[in-house]
Amino acid sequence: MTGLLIRDVSVLIVPVVGECRVDEAQDIYVQDSRITAITPTGPVTAGEWEVIDGSGLVAVPGLVNSHTHSPMVMMRGAAEDLSIDDWFNQRIWPMEVNLTPERVRVGARLACAEMLLAGVTTFVDHYFHADQIAAAAVESGIRADLAPTYFSSAGPEAIDAAIATARELSTLDSRITASLGPHATYTVNDDDLRRTADIAQAEGFRIHLHAAETDDQTQSSVDKYGVTPMQVLERTGVLEAGTLIAHGCGIRESDLPILERYADRVTVASCPKVYLKLAMGEVTPIKGLQAAGVRVGVGTDGAAVHNTLDVWESLRMVALTQKQREHDAEWMPLSDIIRLATRGGAAAAGLADSIGALEPGRQADIVLVDLSKPHNQPIHDPRAALVYSVRASDVVTVVVDGNVVVRDRRLTTMDLDEVLADARALAHTLVDLSQGGAVQHYAP
Amino acid sequence: MTGLLIRDVSVLIVPVVGECRVDEAQDIYVQDSRITAITPTGPVTAGEWEVIDGSGLVAVPGLVNSHTHSPMVMMRGAAEDLSIDDWFNQRIWPMEVNLTPERVRVGARLACAEMLLAGVTTFVDHYFHADQIAAAAVESGIRADLAPTYFSSAGPEAIDAAIATARELSTLDSRITASLGPHATYTVNDDDLRRTADIAQAEGFRIHLHAAETDDQTQSSVDKYGVTPMQVLERTGVLEAGTLIAHGCGIRESDLPILERYADRVTVASCPKVYLKLAMGEVTPIKGLQAAGVRVGVGTDGAAVHNTLDVWESLRMVALTQKQREHDAEWMPLSDIIRLATRGGAAAAGLADSIGALEPGRQADIVLVDLSKPHNQPIHDPRAALVYSVRASDVVTVVVDGNVVVRDRRLTTMDLDEVLADARALAHTLVDLSQGGAVQHYAP
Repeated sequence: MTGLLIRDVSVLIVPVVGECRVDEAQDIYVQDSRITAITPTGPVTAGEWEVIDGSGLVAVPGLVNSHTHSPMVMMRGAAEDLSIDDWFNQRIWPMEVNLTPERVRVGARLACAEMLLAGVTTFVDHYFHADQIAAAAVESGIRADLAPTYFSSAGPEAIDAAIATARELSTLDSRITASLGPHATYTVNDDDLRRTADIAQAEGFRIHLHAAETDDQTQSSVDKYGVTPMQVLERTGVLEAGTLIAHGCGIRESDLPILERYADRVTVASCPKVYLKLAMGEVTPIKGLQAAGVRVGVGTDGAAVHNTLDVWESLRMVALTQKQREHDAEWMPLSDIIRLATRGGAAAAGLADSIGALEPGRQADIVLVDLSKPHNQPIHDPRAALVYSVRASDVVTVVVDGNVVVRDRRLTTMDLDEVLADARALAHTLVDLSQGGAVQHYAP
Repeated sequence: MTGLLIRDVSVLIVPVVGECRVDEAQDIYVQDSRITAITPTGPVTAGEWEVIDGSGLVAVPGLVNSHTHSPMVMMRGAAEDLSIDDWFNQRIWPMEVNLTPERVRVGARLACAEMLLAGVTTFVDHYFHADQIAAAAVESGIRADLAPTYFSSAGPEAIDAAIATARELSTLDSRITASLGPHATYTVNDDDLRRTADIAQAEGFRIHLHAAETDDQTQSSVDKYGVTPMQVLERTGVLEAGTLIAHGCGIRESDLPILERYADRVTVASCPKVYLKLAMGEVTPIKGLQAAGVRVGVGTDGAAVHNTLDVWESLRMVALTQKQREHDAEWMPLSDIIRLATRGGAAAAGLADSIGALEPGRQADIVLVDLSKPHNQPIHDPRAALVYSVRASDVVTVVVDGNVVVRDRRLTTMDLDEVLADARALAHTLVDLSQGGAVQHYAP
């Protein structure tokens, strides 16, 4: 069987703790979907190899989009300059009345194309018609963890159907995993959260949901129920089952000891472009979470608010907003933010041991980046270039699970023109508000 | 004489007030460095035309980088994760001991290349050896306003020399203007600011300086002298003479009535990536400034802290951080942030009447952007794409002063490989700290 050999490439090493570094002139050997060796460039090991010339490029671990709603690319730019209330109630939830399997599939294909071309090799998704998203992911070659979304308001049949979809997806493909996807603590009641946690425990699922997105939500929970959203997650068993919390900007100091108890199985995804754009007032308290041992990933959220699925942009925003939040320019240094977008994302995806670093034995999710363009030059520190000046367009070649899915900036797995044409043809159907109604009402 | 005709292009119209819009299927006629007509695509007007096919592209006014230190690209990534004090005192000002005319020229050439390729057609610069920056700007075809930098600590001869350079540059080339460049209210004393203002008034210069960069600086000024930096600028005649204030994050409510008195001649440049990265605690109070009638532009500051000279990135950061600052997602809407990066920048450059919009009679500074890639698709609102999803790499063609300086993503005016090789060859000399000393000490 032919393996893949990336020759003479600089390799970004992301240790579990401590400084990241770039080792120059390395050869990366890939066989059977895994990295088998990383060695100084030298004579080629015996065997049949498809060779990729990595000279002049930096190999980085595939980025992980730790929280998104991929098909929402279909609503990109359709809900601008709105408060969080209006964004949900005037636009997004009324628009989502228009969702159909076909429209979700078309959106997910576009999203997978956008992410792969930008060096995102795994995405952690939370949306409706997740079977369609899975199909797009499988076709595109990307890796994904998919949580079929449900609200309590949709009734028990809808919840059962979403959970059944998760069961189906969990055996679909080696690159696809599934999580249970209750929407949020404010849209799924405690009974349904308990049932979710029970099923997750019994069947080995993780849970992915929105919680404490803003401090207003936390305060509202305290006012109405006397408990914070984190306390809700604890008492319903969601934390015990293992969960990915999207956003968590409203996580309070008093919640940290709770999360610390489940730090081996709870992760948080931070998507700060969204927090600024919606003027949410807070960003994820990453410093406190990390002190509690909770692993944090970087995400884009959906493109209906983030406008891109660009994890380079997202990781840069995390670094900048964390420095701002802590009033400390030395906090969230280069190595730490790189670690969040790679190893942190791997943990958020439930794949901490198999992706997130370039090491023998891990799945071969590898991105080759060209830092030779003027906006990255000269390079005094390649880590700084990867955090503060790189553009997604600097991604040249992308390998997922040992397969070359982007070669010389072109998708190998899908016809991009067709993907784009399909999205353009259906875009207007997604944003049509003439049907009336909404899938949910935002009143946390 | 041959004119330039951009055929069948979508045109971003940026009015002085109100909503921006995109007019489809337009022809832009350019003659003698100016836009002569913008008409619906139709039969070609009689004359000799170099035709550029604009179909599928959006023409936007060339972006203005309202505040930068262009040669600092040579220090890109060399001063990361540092407090503002350490950034100045441990890195940048000790490094600037190494400045030579050649090194500044090499850096400025790289900066001009980076900016033009990203659709920045004008930059407003503040640095040493400004004659070298001017030479690079002239060579590259970009438009620039250049302020030769001086500190009081360097003595009267250095100040005289900087002012003499400004005089020389003001007659060098039609695309180059000059301003007087005292560094800041905390590095140039009141006597020197008064002399600067007198010369500016007498000779028709504008002034470009740093002031109230942080609230700490403002508080320090109040503690030491009993006045805010804005009061210093007023009493020394700097506001009266007309000035561009870089940053102004420490401008207080009480300063606004002062600035309102000079609103016809005072502008402010906002570079918020820097404010977050250095954990400065504040961003420019744009809402208050605009209410006082003060025009605001968007800038990158130097790449030693901003890491790029990408005004798309900068304008997006302004929009996001302004929404955050005002706790209002409806503030700084799409049309307003586009206006800041174009008309606002034009005002900051002292060119409010000649650049900053695509209108007959204005200089032909035109950028053609391709929004067809997956990360911008589908397009429900092209303004949203230009603010929240576009990448600098989507810039295809750039016209400055009627000249095509970037064609199909390639510089026409300079050999990019040579520019990059020169920068790489000298990069280590800029960051060498073995000489000891510093050009200045930060203790505002």
